[in-house]
Amino acid sequence: MSKVAILGATGYTALELIKLLLRHPGVEITALTSREETAPVDRVHPSLSGRLSLPLENISAKEVAERAECVFSCLPHAASATVIPEILANGVKVVDFSADYRLDSPEMFKTWYEIDHPDATRLGKVPYGMPELFRERIVPAQLVANPGCYPTTAILPLTPLLRAKMIEPNDIILDAKSGVSGAGRKPKLNLHYPECNESIAAYGVGKHRHTPEINQYLSLAADGPVEVIFTPHLTPMDRGILTVAYARQTRPTSQAELLEVLREFYQNEPFVQIVKHLPATKDVAFTNNCHITARVVGGRVMTIAVIDNLIKGASGSAVQNFNLMFGYDETLALL
Amino acid sequence: MSKVAILGATGYTALELIKLLLRHPGVEITALTSREETAPVDRVHPSLSGRLSLPLENISAKEVAERAECVFSCLPHAASATVIPEILANGVKVVDFSADYRLDSPEMFKTWYEIDHPDATRLGKVPYGMPELFRERIVPAQLVANPGCYPTTAILPLTPLLRAKMIEPNDIILDAKSGVSGAGRKPKLNLHYPECNESIAAYGVGKHRHTPEINQYLSLAADGPVEVIFTPHLTPMDRGILTVAYARQTRPTSQAELLEVLREFYQNEPFVQIVKHLPATKDVAFTNNCHITARVVGGRVMTIAVIDNLIKGASGSAVQNFNLMFGYDETLALL
Amino acid sequence: MSKVAILGATGYTALELIKLLLRHPGVEITALTSREETAPVDRVHPSLSGRLSLPLENISAKEVAERAECVFSCLPHAASATVIPEILANGVKVVDFSADYRLDSPEMFKTWYEIDHPDATRLGKVPYGMPELFRERIVPAQLVANPGCYPTTAILPLTPLLRAKMIEPNDIILDAKSGVSGAGRKPKLNLHYPECNESIAAYGVGKHRHTPEINQYLSLAADGPVEVIFTPHLTPMDRGILTVAYARQTRPTSQAELLEVLREFYQNEPFVQIVKHLPATKDVAFTNNCHITARVVGGRVMTIAVIDNLIKGASGSAVQNFNLMFGYDETLALL
Amino acid sequence: MSKVAILGATGYTALELIKLLLRHPGVEITALTSREETAPVDRVHPSLSGRLSLPLENISAKEVAERAECVFSCLPHAASATVIPEILANGVKVVDFSADYRLDSPEMFKTWYEIDHPDATRLGKVPYGMPELFRERIVPAQLVANPGCYPTTAILPLTPLLRAKMIEPNDIILDAKSGVSGAGRKPKLNLHYPECNESIAAYGVGKHRHTPEINQYLSLAADGPVEVIFTPHLTPMDRGILTVAYARQTRPTSQAELLEVLREFYQNEPFVQIVKHLPATKDVAFTNNCHITARVVGGRVMTIAVIDNLIKGASGSAVQNFNLMFGYDETLALL
Repeated sequence: MSKVAILGATGYTALELIKLLLRHPGVEITALTSREETAPVDRVHPSLSGRLSLPLENISAKEVAERAECVFSCLPHAASATVIPEILANGVKVVDFSADYRLDSPEMFKTWYEIDHPDATRLGKVPYGMPELFRERIVPAQLVANPGCYPTTAILPLTPLLRAKMIEPNDIILDAKSGVSGAGRKPKLNLHYPECNESIAAYGVGKHRHTPEINQYLSLAADGPVEVIFTPHLTPMDRGILTVAYARQTRPTSQAELLEVLREFYQNEPFVQIVKHLPATKDVAFTNNCHITARVVGGRVMTIAVIDNLIKGASGSAVQNFNLMFGYDETLALL
Repeated sequence: MSKVAILGATGYTALELIKLLLRHPGVEITALTSREETAPVDRVHPSLSGRLSLPLENISAKEVAERAECVFSCLPHAASATVIPEILANGVKVVDFSADYRLDSPEMFKTWYEIDHPDATRLGKVPYGMPELFRERIVPAQLVANPGCYPTTAILPLTPLLRAKMIEPNDIILDAKSGVSGAGRKPKLNLHYPECNESIAAYGVGKHRHTPEINQYLSLAADGPVEVIFTPHLTPMDRGILTVAYARQTRPTSQAELLEVLREFYQNEPFVQIVKHLPATKDVAFTNNCHITARVVGGRVMTIAVIDNLIKGASGSAVQNFNLMFGYDETLALL
Repeated sequence: MSKVAILGATGYTALELIKLLLRHPGVEITALTSREETAPVDRVHPSLSGRLSLPLENISAKEVAERAECVFSCLPHAASATVIPEILANGVKVVDFSADYRLDSPEMFKTWYEIDHPDATRLGKVPYGMPELFRERIVPAQLVANPGCYPTTAILPLTPLLRAKMIEPNDIILDAKSGVSGAGRKPKLNLHYPECNESIAAYGVGKHRHTPEINQYLSLAADGPVEVIFTPHLTPMDRGILTVAYARQTRPTSQAELLEVLREFYQNEPFVQIVKHLPATKDVAFTNNCHITARVVGGRVMTIAVIDNLIKGASGSAVQNFNLMFGYDETLALL
Repeated sequence: MSKVAILGATGYTALELIKLLLRHPGVEITALTSREETAPVDRVHPSLSGRLSLPLENISAKEVAERAECVFSCLPHAASATVIPEILANGVKVVDFSADYRLDSPEMFKTWYEIDHPDATRLGKVPYGMPELFRERIVPAQLVANPGCYPTTAILPLTPLLRAKMIEPNDIILDAKSGVSGAGRKPKLNLHYPECNESIAAYGVGKHRHTPEINQYLSLAADGPVEVIFTPHLTPMDRGILTVAYARQTRPTSQAELLEVLREFYQNEPFVQIVKHLPATKDVAFTNNCHITARVVGGRVMTIAVIDNLIKGASGSAVQNFNLMFGYDETLALL
């Protein structure tokens, strides 16, 4: 049994993580932290009634480290990288949900997050927790940077095509649509039910913080600089992300060829399915799957990818990484 | 042209009222107040872009009274009855959306609202703004108490049956379902999209503040004390209330007889339709209509009534009252 | 490994059942039938892409029986009881999702379903698949009648109170709200998205076919005849049922006492949680749990119960029954 | 009073049209046709209860022409152009909701609609019913081709920028999101509530029939051939379209300059508002407005436009055209 703790356990990704871990035969949850709540976790999340009644605690990184072999940090950016170093110093493994260890460059972090990185020396050495691309680096890691939800839907479909030089790296447009849970559990006017229900709107146009993360990993795939145009939308549904990528083809190709390249690339991956039909977010809701298709329209390659933002886009990937780091079957608790 | 002002113009009922008044050929909106916002109203409510750009102002009751012949107060309870006396003293007419003047008794107000009434001497003298029942008192009134949304769906269907002595007054159960806009525009966790979307829940069981209002007007209809059991539910939709009433029949009756009694009672009412089918809230969405049907099941009389909570349940009724108070055709701006 | 087959595998309960069974370590799905489709099941249900690609087949009861040790029948009423006898004759166990074996009396079946029962002699001998009440009869059974979704939310909360003689059996009102998936996968106008979205409506008032099932099992609990008034509503959400029961108390009681009686009754049940707060359907969405609370209002006892209609209200209960019938841990695949 | 008739009066655009016309002081509805229904229209659309009870009739074009001065045709493509010639021959004016008279070329029509055009000689002579661009041609017209919903959200924002040569005509991507009512009232599996609720999906990628209509009118604005990439999505909401256009700038520009060009172009238009913020579909729901904004991101110009697909995208525009054709104030019944 692996003892695990969750930092920042009141949010939606933490709740989803708890639900997945409760199904995991090798896991015992030993600590849940919160800076604001001290109630049993099932009071804050009534859906845990009868399933988990551990108290939320405001405890130090050191105490957490003493109780757990693995810590999942669901803290906000900057807060996460402030406590993780001490946890690591105690020999405990960490899966970090925040953006803190995803970017390689402290300058890039400062540009987009507008603060100095609290643990800058570690940047560039932490594997990105996307097992489909970085499995070998994740297995032995002590710290893994769990990917952002939107980046997952851009990097998974485009990496094989960039590596195969089938699309131009310098003209990629990403039009993404996310369910509201992606915006977190804190009430705000734009997330108030009568505001966002029955409505769709773009937000953060040209400014969303997932942009540098997408650029970094697509650049890696392209072996050269990529700067995408990324437009997220708030969509009136709880969960799910659908991202359409529009890229310029390097040579005439076909839907069949694109699907074949993608299928071969992901043929052994349990959580990536290449489909011929146009996928809907509902097809992957409440699963760790990513469904991807491709089309050629007007000389452009389009990819369409769907995930559940809280699972493959957050907590499912985190458990997948945990499984790899602790030697469990990668799919445990995720099928 | 009648000059009108709206107090507390940032909420949903105020927004709906503005939209109705913009269609009213006899109305000019001259002032919008807010204690928190000073922006043009179309900044706060982008749906007003290009339609109304009046600033929100934090002005005194006296200033409001100088600018308007009619004031609609969308202030919260207690706040409303604090400013209304001065407005009335300036000879201005008022339609009050709050609960402040709906109950006849200051004691009842204190029991349910847990504060002393700010203008207790006026209680019992203010007509209840339900034209279908109290039109004659509304026409000459200077102040009208606009009805609550839930009470509208209870009082309209049950009054004719109580007056006709077809149902027992002492055993009435109201099971009501409301869209989320009824809970207001202030963000709260239980109204946060990912919390209340895809979910229904009862709330305020046995404690909802519309209960004494319902009791008071059903008692009037029954000519004797009525105390209902009232269970409201938060339903995942923007608008609409559906209320099922379960009452004991005083003598064997039939659906046809019930519908006939209701139809006769409301035969000249432009906004009450008695229907044979089971009505849905969507049938009356964005209208000032109330659709009512009735059934007999297992010896009980059931009535089912639907309204749009923001229109017939608030701003539409307010305009209906305004039309009566100012001599306009009662249906102006409401069809 | 137990080989299982599913009859009528294109509907929502079948899809949910497949998803649960794919998580069950002791189950191999060997046949899926459909009278209309012959595609691989993941074509009909794209959410199964990469998870199950078994073909849908139009095969005889005999063929099914040859391939499976347990058959789950998701066929419509009457169709189910037409094929089940032959499957049973081949020594195969059956969990029937239809209403065919839930009522004890062929006359009652005919009254409500308007046809003669195809297998009338078996009625009255088939255990009702509600393990919390009938576990001992389910374990050795060859055929189990899986409960209806609405009845689950009425029978679970009211049985302990009726057995404890705390509520009168002769004056029970059930006001129930269901998500749209409960109405099945066949497109109809009233289930067309723009019709039922943003709208709530009662349906089948006084006529819903779950009424006799509720009456039968509440009568058993009351040890005397019970005839409820049952009003279901179509609620704009995918999943979930919330049922409020209004019953007359036999003697003055309190919320605390009611909760205590319920808690004691279900203390060892893994899937029934008695809660103090007012539960929302979202609290149990995608789980096999039933959350129940109780209140006393105006001299009446109210119970509020929530389930996921497709899981505890159908496929989850079916797997729970399967686990009991085949000697697996009752919670396998359900936590 | 202008007598008007509606062909194909059971669909959503017809319903919306009826609601608008009921508010129009100059209109009397004299006939509603349907090939399938003969009930009073308020039976088919319960939201019309108490508002309009005209029967649906299966009558000939000639009979319709005898009863009306203006006919709105809500018939499907090809069906519409089959009956319209006879109506026109009787001297009656027509606003056609179908795509039949929108394209100038019979060949293009055949390519996209896969049938020969029933009234090909008229193509190229019928004004496109977008008053903001073609008002002068609409006023004297006997027949007007009411625009498609998606095209409205592409043509309105891009025309001023193409005319001003600020964007390249040959590299335009349109990513559009529509509410479900756009797909019509006929029940289909993909529009079944539990299928499309809580889910977003692209459809008709590279094949949607609004593509040639968009191309034709953008080509006119560009004074040269335009072929867009157009990706529509089915979004889980009743109403609304949001379209993001990605175009290449011809020279460095800024958001301020773009907004200024748009504002100047539409300065006298009552139904087009240029906004600085990112608009949501809810901002224009149930109105005839189109809100447009623009951004410059990564060297590309983006426009974002929102409308209510049933009003500005269909019935509102139709009434706007009617007002122009019959000499009413253009905004009558639309504010």
